Amino acid sequence: MAEYKNLSKEELLSLRSELEKQYEEFKKLGLQLDMSRGKPNKAQLDLSSAILDVFNSTSDVKSVDGTDTRNYGILTGIPEAKELFGELMGVPAKNTIIFGTASLTIMYDYISQCMMFGCGDEPWIKQGNVKFLCPVPGYDRHFSILQHFGIEMINVKMNDDGPDMDSIEELVKDSSVKGIFCVPKYSNPDGITFSDEVVRRFAALKPHAKDFRVIWDNAYLVHGINDTPDELLNIFDVAKEYGSEDMFIEVCSTSKISFAGAGVSALAASDANIKAIQSRMTVQTISHDKMNQLRHARYFKNLDGIKEHMKKHAAILKPKFDTVTEGLTKAFEGTGIARWNNPNGGYFVSLFVMNGCAKRVGELCKEAGLTLTTVGATYPYGIDPDDSNIRIAPSFPDVDELKKAVELLAVCVKLAAVEKLLDK
Amino acid sequence: MAEYKNLSKEELLSLRSELEKQYEEFKKLGLQLDMSRGKPNKAQLDLSSAILDVFNSTSDVKSVDGTDTRNYGILTGIPEAKELFGELMGVPAKNTIIFGTASLTIMYDYISQCMMFGCGDEPWIKQGNVKFLCPVPGYDRHFSILQHFGIEMINVKMNDDGPDMDSIEELVKDSSVKGIFCVPKYSNPDGITFSDEVVRRFAALKPHAKDFRVIWDNAYLVHGINDTPDELLNIFDVAKEYGSEDMFIEVCSTSKISFAGAGVSALAASDANIKAIQSRMTVQTISHDKMNQLRHARYFKNLDGIKEHMKKHAAILKPKFDTVTEGLTKAFEGTGIARWNNPNGGYFVSLFVMNGCAKRVGELCKEAGLTLTTVGATYPYGIDPDDSNIRIAPSFPDVDELKKAVELLAVCVKLAAVEKLLDK
Repeated sequence: MAEYKNLSKEELLSLRSELEKQYEEFKKLGLQLDMSRGKPNKAQLDLSSAILDVFNSTSDVKSVDGTDTRNYGILTGIPEAKELFGELMGVPAKNTIIFGTASLTIMYDYISQCMMFGCGDEPWIKQGNVKFLCPVPGYDRHFSILQHFGIEMINVKMNDDGPDMDSIEELVKDSSVKGIFCVPKYSNPDGITFSDEVVRRFAALKPHAKDFRVIWDNAYLVHGINDTPDELLNIFDVAKEYGSEDMFIEVCSTSKISFAGAGVSALAASDANIKAIQSRMTVQTISHDKMNQLRHARYFKNLDGIKEHMKKHAAILKPKFDTVTEGLTKAFEGTGIARWNNPNGGYFVSLFVMNGCAKRVGELCKEAGLTLTTVGATYPYGIDPDDSNIRIAPSFPDVDELKKAVELLAVCVKLAAVEKLLDK
Repeated sequence: MAEYKNLSKEELLSLRSELEKQYEEFKKLGLQLDMSRGKPNKAQLDLSSAILDVFNSTSDVKSVDGTDTRNYGILTGIPEAKELFGELMGVPAKNTIIFGTASLTIMYDYISQCMMFGCGDEPWIKQGNVKFLCPVPGYDRHFSILQHFGIEMINVKMNDDGPDMDSIEELVKDSSVKGIFCVPKYSNPDGITFSDEVVRRFAALKPHAKDFRVIWDNAYLVHGINDTPDELLNIFDVAKEYGSEDMFIEVCSTSKISFAGAGVSALAASDANIKAIQSRMTVQTISHDKMNQLRHARYFKNLDGIKEHMKKHAAILKPKFDTVTEGLTKAFEGTGIARWNNPNGGYFVSLFVMNGCAKRVGELCKEAGLTLTTVGATYPYGIDPDDSNIRIAPSFPDVDELKKAVELLAVCVKLAAVEKLLDK
């Protein structure tokens, strides 16, 4: 097919009418498809069913240190959970804290603490206008946290190997820039893993603000979907070389390993940060759910156990990702109106349509029964300056639904492009 | 025995030497006893073992509304958990939000939100010096939260039927007084349940601050230990009469119903407060542990199920409370140097020793191997103005240990009193 930009007005008009016909056919089907959230499907959740067999009424529910996990105590997590998450994030157990179900809550709480009490300097709330760097496109819930606290967000471009470090090195000279949110592996939504050079430049950052924090949201750290998974340098190993460990707060969870609604989350940080976080946790809680920690630790045993388990997730997810990327290739080859990533893991395919068309695509899809992540949500304040990015979440629908959804999406993307070109 | 205050110097000296001998005997035993925290004992935790049989790998894990509890979603709790906690707190399910394991975390977070974002007025942090009323003696972890946020604490005397409402009605005329923490049933540590009149006067309060909040920590709402449990008026029923529902935030948990380290907590509030809390929760988390909610809802079924279960707790706790109160009666009858409550429920016996002696008692006990709640901790800033209150937590040790512990405690209380009287 010819590139759309080279089509004549007549060709575009004829194409529009053809696409409108296709679109109307889709509408008649009365579809109800959802590719909006990175949500595991039932088959993935079933993979972890046996976690529920770890305990019954006759089980020993003591942690290795003898703690009865049913009772109060052990603020920062039982030893075996700390070991497991330490191995997962590549840090000593002592540098982990185990929390409840959601790493989002850890991040929210960390920002909240920085606002109210600071981290090595005055509370952020007392420092006037405070700013954060946001690699874009990015995770909408990171942006929601920042917006909630009134932290100004500055877009930073994502390159193929991670955020644009030239920009970041420049921006951190402003002492009101207090941090950055990152998904360093299989980024949300681009599926990009930060290159060794990017990780090194992060570790080597010399922000003007001494209370600058990198929230290293390692949500997809073992979430490869094929035989060529990405490798991410261990940020704490590299940071040690630069003495910058205190700059990094890493989080992860089993939400997409065991159960999205009933997993375990954890934080990794330097000795100094662990001490600070722990000291206010004593006020905040008595302990998180230690039985669920023990359930997970006994079931997965160690990192190898998790890795074996993740192969089963990959086997379920790969055909879904393939359906999306093959569908997109088939639909858009040669048209020059769309580009997308082919990630080795994570939960998303990031689609870039012709500038100025994404919102229109969202409308068209919605009208025909396909729910996408709100267009714009992958940018701070919900504003995609190019109105181009669409996040596709292939995990939840089944392959047949996905195929249909991608076909419909493609028609909508094309229609929006033609409308745009005709409007010029 | 004669009242200590009427003893002559010679009698006191002889008594001291006798008590010192008894104390040394205790020290020789090398005891390691702990009455410091309101922690369930193993037998109590075993009562709920069957909760662990609710799910196994073949179980249906769907909520009544069809939600797969293993997955993301349902921010404020699954319907059956909201029903259960609604019944427990006497409010419609829609006026509940279900959280993670700890009601302490709900309270911390609520105060944090009021500081940062306010509740119906400017954020507290922007209103200069903010104050809270603290019925004393009270729960040390309430005070820790307030101290953590730099909220000034004002002591309010506990009467036999609840906090001194005359003082409270006067103090709330100060618009910088923003709230009060209460344990309205079987208060910590006094075991006092607020009378109907006290509850009504709470509901009728007209604080000058329009963002005044009563944190109604109903931690022991079904925690009677004998056949004559206390009755507490439903605060939301009464508040409705006065249109003051927005003033009350009620919390509770199953920490002392099922598992202290792996239970479910919940909040009850007015429509307006639920809406406000829910709106920031969307930023804070995706959902709390819905599987644990379902586990609890299926196991307990309804309020009757919980009440039946609590009878078993009572049967375990009653002999322990009896051991303490009988031991105290035996030791102190006629001495005039100690008074204490005989609660119908809750987790504590509150002992008042001769003014100026409590810290000394704590030291003596510690030296002989008995750990008490840090003396003073039942007061804001750890300062008991009378240096008199000692919180006894009888739940964790077994009856034999308790008997020994109370005997030792009695010797220490007497010794401290004699030292004090001789020092005059």
